[in-house]
Amino acid sequence: MKLDKRSNIPLYAQLKDWILERIASGQFPAGQQIPSELVLCEDLALSRPTVRQAIAELVAEGTLVIQKGKGTFVSAEPERLEIRQFSPFSYSLLAAKSLSDYNFQSIELLPPDEETLRLFEGAKASGSPGFWSLTWPIRIHGQEIGLGHSLIPVSLFPDFGDQVQSGKSMIDILANKYAYLPSKGSCQLAVRAATHAEALALDISRRSPVLCATSRLTSRSGHICEWIELIWRPDSVTLGLEAGRI
Amino acid sequence: MKLDKRSNIPLYAQLKDWILERIASGQFPAGQQIPSELVLCEDLALSRPTVRQAIAELVAEGTLVIQKGKGTFVSAEPERLEIRQFSPFSYSLLAAKSLSDYNFQSIELLPPDEETLRLFEGAKASGSPGFWSLTWPIRIHGQEIGLGHSLIPVSLFPDFGDQVQSGKSMIDILANKYAYLPSKGSCQLAVRAATHAEALALDISRRSPVLCATSRLTSRSGHICEWIELIWRPDSVTLGLEAGRI
Repeated sequence: MKLDKRSNIPLYAQLKDWILERIASGQFPAGQQIPSELVLCEDLALSRPTVRQAIAELVAEGTLVIQKGKGTFVSAEPERLEIRQFSPFSYSLLAAKSLSDYNFQSIELLPPDEETLRLFEGAKASGSPGFWSLTWPIRIHGQEIGLGHSLIPVSLFPDFGDQVQSGKSMIDILANKYAYLPSKGSCQLAVRAATHAEALALDISRRSPVLCATSRLTSRSGHICEWIELIWRPDSVTLGLEAGRI
Repeated sequence: MKLDKRSNIPLYAQLKDWILERIASGQFPAGQQIPSELVLCEDLALSRPTVRQAIAELVAEGTLVIQKGKGTFVSAEPERLEIRQFSPFSYSLLAAKSLSDYNFQSIELLPPDEETLRLFEGAKASGSPGFWSLTWPIRIHGQEIGLGHSLIPVSLFPDFGDQVQSGKSMIDILANKYAYLPSKGSCQLAVRAATHAEALALDISRRSPVLCATSRLTSRSGHICEWIELIWRPDSVTLGLEAGRI
């Protein structure tokens, strides 16, 4: 393809297509620097404003990215961490062998409120002693890529928060709790806008989309024993699912 | 909470907090109209610009939404469709009992290219006859909420596209193909920016985030027999996962 100065198509639009073709063909690979404005002007005999407009639009569309002081680069899909074999039990505190990797941000005893009781299907609404609420950052390579939040009913695990805080082992915490451990789980995955607090914690702009998983775990005894909400930065994670058929 | 005209906190910021508190307490529930500018001005003895600035910021932050000619409303999370028991086999053509609901947009025979061969692990790269490529809209209540795309190797299913196009039943299409039917699957879920074509098809802005699932299915014979890419509008769907533990 050559730029055609006598065409009805504006030159900046032709230049956009010229760049897009080179990206599609692999001549300008993802993550790589493209020729500078000056080089494009000279090689293609274009004016500076024409080149600027083409690049500005490709930046606005997310195809190119400007790194200050370095140049203009083809956008690269960021490297993503895969959370392998993701399931409703992933990050469950009650299903964890150990909580030593969790680095809890907060461990609180919440009084029962309407919303939480609804999550737990109002179980023993009248006499509910509330819920343990634990939050933690999901980190990889030192970077915070997500947040976890778990709710566990005090009626099933009266001392859970205190025991976790005191560093008690999961084997001891869960001893004799067999009937209350999760045996079934369901999870809902969605994209939603980050809340203000989530955006701050993940260093993304307010109302950015986040990948969100909400799991409800049911115990052998039939109680809802844990609710987990996990959110991740949208650019840093993929969830892996595995399945087999007979 | 009362607005304090002698406070150092600007009145519009106090009004924002006043509105946010009422949303948090349920006094202004999600989806419901809030008092008009005029009513807020009069009831709280505020100037019109003060009220406008507070509302404009809450709209920019996504907390409120203006419906032209109607008023200002508390943003509601949109109703979402749940795709229940989502798994790597969901929307697989080879695992479908019938394709009559699919309404294919295109059924094409693609020559083998580098990228597709890589997806299929270069299987028989030298002599690959290519891939059947089928695309379809995912619709619910008449609205297009997603797009599906499946790739099936011609080497395993030489006539697949033609058979689907001619309306042949899946029982007949898959007869004697037992060894090539999917028996294991893995899926990666992520949020990514919509391509231009996807944005057009889903009526969302270019580069909007979409929820994306990519599944790879392996047959009993050990071949990769199908790749599926599914994308959904981020505001319209949740994926449901189910799991049990022994």
